[in-house]
Amino acid sequence: MSLPNIAVLGATGVVGREILSILIENDVKYDKIKFLASKKSAGKKIEFKGEEHTIIEATPEAFEGVNIVLASAGGSTSLALAPEAVKRGCVYIDNSSAFRMVEGTPLVIAGVNDEDLRMHKGIVANPNCSTSQLMLALKPLHDYAGIKRLIVSTYQAVSGAGLAAINELTENTKASLAGQKFENKAFKHEIGFNVIPQIDVFTENGYTKEEMKVTNETRKILHLSKDTPISCTAVRVPVYRGHSEAVTVEFERPIDEAKAREILENAYGVEVIDDKENYQYPTPLYAASKDPVYVGRIRKNIAFDNAIDFWCVADNLRIGAALNTVRIAEKIIEMQLY
Amino acid sequence: MSLPNIAVLGATGVVGREILSILIENDVKYDKIKFLASKKSAGKKIEFKGEEHTIIEATPEAFEGVNIVLASAGGSTSLALAPEAVKRGCVYIDNSSAFRMVEGTPLVIAGVNDEDLRMHKGIVANPNCSTSQLMLALKPLHDYAGIKRLIVSTYQAVSGAGLAAINELTENTKASLAGQKFENKAFKHEIGFNVIPQIDVFTENGYTKEEMKVTNETRKILHLSKDTPISCTAVRVPVYRGHSEAVTVEFERPIDEAKAREILENAYGVEVIDDKENYQYPTPLYAASKDPVYVGRIRKNIAFDNAIDFWCVADNLRIGAALNTVRIAEKIIEMQLY
Repeated sequence: MSLPNIAVLGATGVVGREILSILIENDVKYDKIKFLASKKSAGKKIEFKGEEHTIIEATPEAFEGVNIVLASAGGSTSLALAPEAVKRGCVYIDNSSAFRMVEGTPLVIAGVNDEDLRMHKGIVANPNCSTSQLMLALKPLHDYAGIKRLIVSTYQAVSGAGLAAINELTENTKASLAGQKFENKAFKHEIGFNVIPQIDVFTENGYTKEEMKVTNETRKILHLSKDTPISCTAVRVPVYRGHSEAVTVEFERPIDEAKAREILENAYGVEVIDDKENYQYPTPLYAASKDPVYVGRIRKNIAFDNAIDFWCVADNLRIGAALNTVRIAEKIIEMQLY
Repeated sequence: MSLPNIAVLGATGVVGREILSILIENDVKYDKIKFLASKKSAGKKIEFKGEEHTIIEATPEAFEGVNIVLASAGGSTSLALAPEAVKRGCVYIDNSSAFRMVEGTPLVIAGVNDEDLRMHKGIVANPNCSTSQLMLALKPLHDYAGIKRLIVSTYQAVSGAGLAAINELTENTKASLAGQKFENKAFKHEIGFNVIPQIDVFTENGYTKEEMKVTNETRKILHLSKDTPISCTAVRVPVYRGHSEAVTVEFERPIDEAKAREILENAYGVEVIDDKENYQYPTPLYAASKDPVYVGRIRKNIAFDNAIDFWCVADNLRIGAALNTVRIAEKIIEMQLY
């Protein structure tokens, strides 16, 4: 099979830029590459591997001759463009939430449920950032002991909300330090020296969409039953990069702390940092711009007969978005599914 | 009964200063007042109600003639001084953790378990900040439906760690904004634009002392059985003032969201902010320097048959420390227990 032609859609965004870095770091082999973005960015120049490229407007025709699209362009754009790309023979790897819960569309974390890629009909969905990191830690534990119930509280970085949010954290923090008033725009409340217990909009049951993504996407990725009890509280914290999660997972079968640690130490994409004597555990500042999902604070939960607690931190732009997109592309190439 | 003589021990600390403010705000009636602190601060002047007072060294003799001590002086100081104060007829209200779990010593949140004050033998303990705010929200829910299991994740402000920690958040944040290296001292890791999943030291079971305080103090205050399942993950966030908590509470008896909301709206010391349409819920920036425990994000938990989730925010220096100390003093005066 010849090398694929690839396209990066949303090449100028926070995640798009990260995808470009990782394509280089991972030395992904392709024949031709295209950089696509909205009309607004079309015509602009972008540097990649030392060469200047012109950004092309993401019209349906722009997908002609492309084999794999790495897309981070927002839900409405993907809803409009993905079918056009598929019609033209592309495999469309989508970072938005548009297709994640569509029956028959694989929702994939590379290294967790690669086999689901085989059922793709053109579109492959990349899970929400807060789900992605959790899956790499949970999958091997689930294989061993079977997830019975899952409770998660998140501490999410602002970069998950895009460039305006990143800038707002800086401006808001500066204003607070100077004792000045600040008018928040990107967030519903001030984020400087504050935490905000809402990410995405509220749903009928009082949970936010972000929280229900953790519930629904986890069930789909791990092939759990549709009523597996999973509850999340998603909170924005004044951190630039790196989502953290306090995780309580109750299991069907016995598992002790030592076994959980052993499994996590051997898990794909996971690195354990858990040295209590030396105050070592993952923090978002440490995890920023790195690839692994870091896990620490592993302990037997004292509120259930058979549960493990851990603390899980990863770069939300990498494993939570760009890195998994590139890894999915690599799997698609390796498994010859394009 | 004549008015009591009171002493504020640790008058120059973060909590001590807050106690002084609240004595004025609450217009607490007393006969004489004394300001006690360590040898280091003795002799310094302090302004209170427009008058200048001299800080007295907290020797055993300094408690002579005092009826009620409002103490926020750290565990080792309290261990040494509380018995001396009690010997001299004082009721010693202690903010440290030294006596909280001592059998027979009342551990009290004013408005939650005031009757426990009647068993005091000189010392009354003030619970840990993260427990205190939770109790005001949980007590009326517990009275209605009976707590079966409790899971808490905290988002705790730096002021809980004292003045050096407050200053370190400022300096660390400024250094980060300027792109400069920062040497953390007050915290084990950088706190600027970061979160740290450790508060207080680790215990044998892998939980921190801070986390086990929530478990043990909650059981004691609410008169729960010693094996009631309660688990906490305590995390420091870059917020100056105001602890937040994501709370999952499973109940023995049925309770729905509307009933939980009604109970919380009528609860002593609690104010509900929970207007999803207008993005209204409590944040620490809003709760700072205010008295109520703010509760929002009230919802039926989807991972248990019979559980409620909520988000609880309060000023850690107020209800978490100084306000409850003053309220306990007021109760002791009202109930004539000195």
